[in-house]
Amino acid sequence: MQNLKRCRDLAGFFLRAHSAQQLRNSTPLASGCSGLLSLRWTSHQGQDYYGSRGPRFRYIVTGLVAGTGVVLAYGLHQSKGEQAATSVTRAPSLPVYTQEEVTKHSSIDNGVWVTYKGSVYDITEFVAIHPGGDKILLAAGGALEPFWALYAVHGQDHVLDILSEYKVGILQPEDCKKQEMANPADPYSTDPPRHPALVVNSSKPFNGETPPSLLTDSYITPSALFFKRNHLPVPQVDPAKYKLQLEGLPEGTVSLTLDDLKSRFPKHTVTATLQCAGNRRSDMNKIKQVKGLNWGVGAIGNATWSGARLRDVLSFYGFGPEVAAKARHVQFEGLDQDTTGTPYAASIPLSKAVSEEGDVLLAYEMNGEDLPADHGYPVRVVVPGIVGARNVKWLGKIVVSEEESKSHWQQNDYKGFSPGTDWDTVDFKSAPAIQELPVQSAITWPEEGSTVDHSMKEVTLKGYAWSGGGREVVRVDVSLDGGKTWHVAELQNSETGQKPGPPPPPGRAWAWKLWEITIPLPEGAQELELVCKAVDSSYNSQPDTVSPIWNLRGVLSTAWHRVKVKVE
Amino acid sequence: MQNLKRCRDLAGFFLRAHSAQQLRNSTPLASGCSGLLSLRWTSHQGQDYYGSRGPRFRYIVTGLVAGTGVVLAYGLHQSKGEQAATSVTRAPSLPVYTQEEVTKHSSIDNGVWVTYKGSVYDITEFVAIHPGGDKILLAAGGALEPFWALYAVHGQDHVLDILSEYKVGILQPEDCKKQEMANPADPYSTDPPRHPALVVNSSKPFNGETPPSLLTDSYITPSALFFKRNHLPVPQVDPAKYKLQLEGLPEGTVSLTLDDLKSRFPKHTVTATLQCAGNRRSDMNKIKQVKGLNWGVGAIGNATWSGARLRDVLSFYGFGPEVAAKARHVQFEGLDQDTTGTPYAASIPLSKAVSEEGDVLLAYEMNGEDLPADHGYPVRVVVPGIVGARNVKWLGKIVVSEEESKSHWQQNDYKGFSPGTDWDTVDFKSAPAIQELPVQSAITWPEEGSTVDHSMKEVTLKGYAWSGGGREVVRVDVSLDGGKTWHVAELQNSETGQKPGPPPPPGRAWAWKLWEITIPLPEGAQELELVCKAVDSSYNSQPDTVSPIWNLRGVLSTAWHRVKVKVE
Repeated sequence: MQNLKRCRDLAGFFLRAHSAQQLRNSTPLASGCSGLLSLRWTSHQGQDYYGSRGPRFRYIVTGLVAGTGVVLAYGLHQSKGEQAATSVTRAPSLPVYTQEEVTKHSSIDNGVWVTYKGSVYDITEFVAIHPGGDKILLAAGGALEPFWALYAVHGQDHVLDILSEYKVGILQPEDCKKQEMANPADPYSTDPPRHPALVVNSSKPFNGETPPSLLTDSYITPSALFFKRNHLPVPQVDPAKYKLQLEGLPEGTVSLTLDDLKSRFPKHTVTATLQCAGNRRSDMNKIKQVKGLNWGVGAIGNATWSGARLRDVLSFYGFGPEVAAKARHVQFEGLDQDTTGTPYAASIPLSKAVSEEGDVLLAYEMNGEDLPADHGYPVRVVVPGIVGARNVKWLGKIVVSEEESKSHWQQNDYKGFSPGTDWDTVDFKSAPAIQELPVQSAITWPEEGSTVDHSMKEVTLKGYAWSGGGREVVRVDVSLDGGKTWHVAELQNSETGQKPGPPPPPGRAWAWKLWEITIPLPEGAQELELVCKAVDSSYNSQPDTVSPIWNLRGVLSTAWHRVKVKVE
Repeated sequence: MQNLKRCRDLAGFFLRAHSAQQLRNSTPLASGCSGLLSLRWTSHQGQDYYGSRGPRFRYIVTGLVAGTGVVLAYGLHQSKGEQAATSVTRAPSLPVYTQEEVTKHSSIDNGVWVTYKGSVYDITEFVAIHPGGDKILLAAGGALEPFWALYAVHGQDHVLDILSEYKVGILQPEDCKKQEMANPADPYSTDPPRHPALVVNSSKPFNGETPPSLLTDSYITPSALFFKRNHLPVPQVDPAKYKLQLEGLPEGTVSLTLDDLKSRFPKHTVTATLQCAGNRRSDMNKIKQVKGLNWGVGAIGNATWSGARLRDVLSFYGFGPEVAAKARHVQFEGLDQDTTGTPYAASIPLSKAVSEEGDVLLAYEMNGEDLPADHGYPVRVVVPGIVGARNVKWLGKIVVSEEESKSHWQQNDYKGFSPGTDWDTVDFKSAPAIQELPVQSAITWPEEGSTVDHSMKEVTLKGYAWSGGGREVVRVDVSLDGGKTWHVAELQNSETGQKPGPPPPPGRAWAWKLWEITIPLPEGAQELELVCKAVDSSYNSQPDTVSPIWNLRGVLSTAWHRVKVKVE
């Protein structure tokens, strides 16, 4: 913990400065404090991290969880680490260390040791290639358990395999017991119950999406079925004690209660679609493995959000030309924190935050009711037209600033890269943080692999389409033959059977459109490749294929959606 | 001319109401008044316009000109007209008509007759399928010459062939002479001289583009080389007598002089890229013939524009919440007019016009000098981030209105459609007028078909990238192998050798970026398929291929740009 201030960029420093060759033993993980038997060990050379670009094998990582920097890519470890493995022999015994000795190894300079279930690991070399970044240093000199409890993915076999390579000793039984006593309870034990229909991509933190067949059943997605994308445990917030901090305005730090927010500012309602940057990531995984939750087409939903306008709140507390002359961003911090107290955080451009047409809300209602726990109770930011990741939930702090949020999610995640960029070459500073999302669409019906009844002579397709930045979807093209010929679908901007809603003002089309089309079945077709692609009011269209937009984080997966069905 | 008020929608009405079968003779065009010999004639049946969807032949139309609705597609005529041609016999003579008799046929009800070089034509049936729309009715009962003088394309053989099918008589010699006396001089005779390097797509009206190799020589495109896209003759404007009308504000009609504009409002300078909606249309023509000028990659340019901010002018003359509550659009009319006095016109959303971040200018300078004649002297609108067609030149009138411009170019042109939409099925009301353009990029060097020196071991590519709506280009990906592998190009936002310009504020990136990259030549490659694609700050990317975005007007041609070169 004492290294918190030094954490940033230490990994980069380490890679430059660390040239000593090290020989190190490793054993598989002991199982609890009694697991003293080592089965194999491997010697590593800690140099030439950049020499290995052609991985000979990679772990297949599915259902991955992005967390406090703990985006997993243990393939990366293999890619870089495999050259170091030069011999495998047996280690009959390992030294026993005290917690005090372990604690001394809590910096890059002194070596980075951690403990896990009674074993001691020297992970100094691993710091630089930890897929979750230098956050791993937070555990330096101590136990991994409190950190791993936040991200269930660490419990997977391949992660334990990797850790085993760094084993250097055994924690003495007394300290081992002390640790067990101190270990926190499951931080997810107070998470709310979820609707059983959600397709769960990870349970800790909870990430679940709406099944495609339910997604377009209603124009307004029911809150219980709306996709949930949590980065951390759901915080327990007492509405009576809730305080929202506001910083960076002339009046200094201001603190608002929930009642202040509701009573001092007009209640404003916006219908807006939220989409995760990783929606449809599974299409990218089919091309080449990416890091992140394996979302299908359901990490998107449309709801009505009510609350105070952010611009009203900022104005009320002194935002004006003086602040505007300097500030460029509005940062948001959630009340959801990791074990070090680091909250989820993100920021948006000031221009969006204060624009009359921006419609940014400090929302306390979703679909006419209090925000559900999973959606940020009691207050979240809703930033229409902007990627879900900036719509910070359980809002604890707002900072008007010259700078973007320094959070991992703003700086080193949720950015797009060229398909030619890999984890060896990526420079997160080279790409802007995702804000507005590109035009998107998907087929929700029929589902992949289903069968169309030939005797019906026609097939009905349904789906959704949406674009970021308030750009209205103006057309959806649908094909039954993989994109050779195209038909124009009917668009819907209200519940089925209700009269169409009024067209949104230019640049403020925050809500999706559902679409539907019935097309005669082609003569003699035995299989159909259904395709949809949308066009927005700036006439942006979706790319044809996935490969050319593939990126190592699997975000912005907006190629034509293709669904294969049989005709019988 | 007396039918002007009825013109709109008459064509549609005609198609519904007109059911009489007509037998009509036609001969090829007489050459001047003395051309009385008819060589062949054809009988037509004037029904079943909708019956023919599968044209058996089409004229190949290249270098087409869009004008006052006179976008040519004589293939359409063939598609619909060919079924009517049922017999071909000789007509030894045709009746002689007086101008008075011709003039009686100046409406759909009485038949639409026109004269051309001494012959009389009954074009009643052709009105509905005239590719330029019902503007053709403006010539009803009179001579075609004044109209055709505006659009040189009408002089092409296939157009004359089509007209010949509608010949019904000869104009009596006295009236013929009167017409010749009255015929206007070439309306383009006062057009300014142009730079010889421009690639001319049509001379009357003048439409020329920058050659690719010159396009990226400078970040700021020299005015003389900047693409010129005129719809009509360049008007001769005396700056001392210039008046700009302003309508739709509480003060009623206001009239401003050039001096008013320069002295009453701060001079504001914006660097902005303008692009024609038809830029890169030639790529669409390779897939299937479209209508419009066959632009290459040079119908785009980047300049500094100086003038009064439109919002300042509107505010000065009373624009405020009262007007904003009703108005939705700002219409612009040019001083360039066709022979009926109809000006070029277009509109933009009010929100763009009055936004502090919209940067819409009433520009009187381009690249630090008075606007050149071809670019709108003395005043044009510059609407950064918006399609060229709305940047009205030779600005004569501004109207704050509840409605879009009613002009042909706003209503029935410059819109995008599905690739499945053809001229039989197109409904211009179904698509929004193009405003913001989608992300675009092109390779300007090397040029198609050129040869790369193998001994150089590497190849350097150059190009441009831009996106509409103020979205900054954040990345350009380049491939040498048709899109299998990608490299990231260097971006440039200032002249070569100068220090990079500051990043634009979010949503106000009006200027293009030039890009350049040097890539090692692949071993043994004999041919390269160079590709570029850009990504903007909303992470929109370009579609892979042309076919799925093909549209009947050939606008919005933004698929990856591909250039094939040989390696020798």
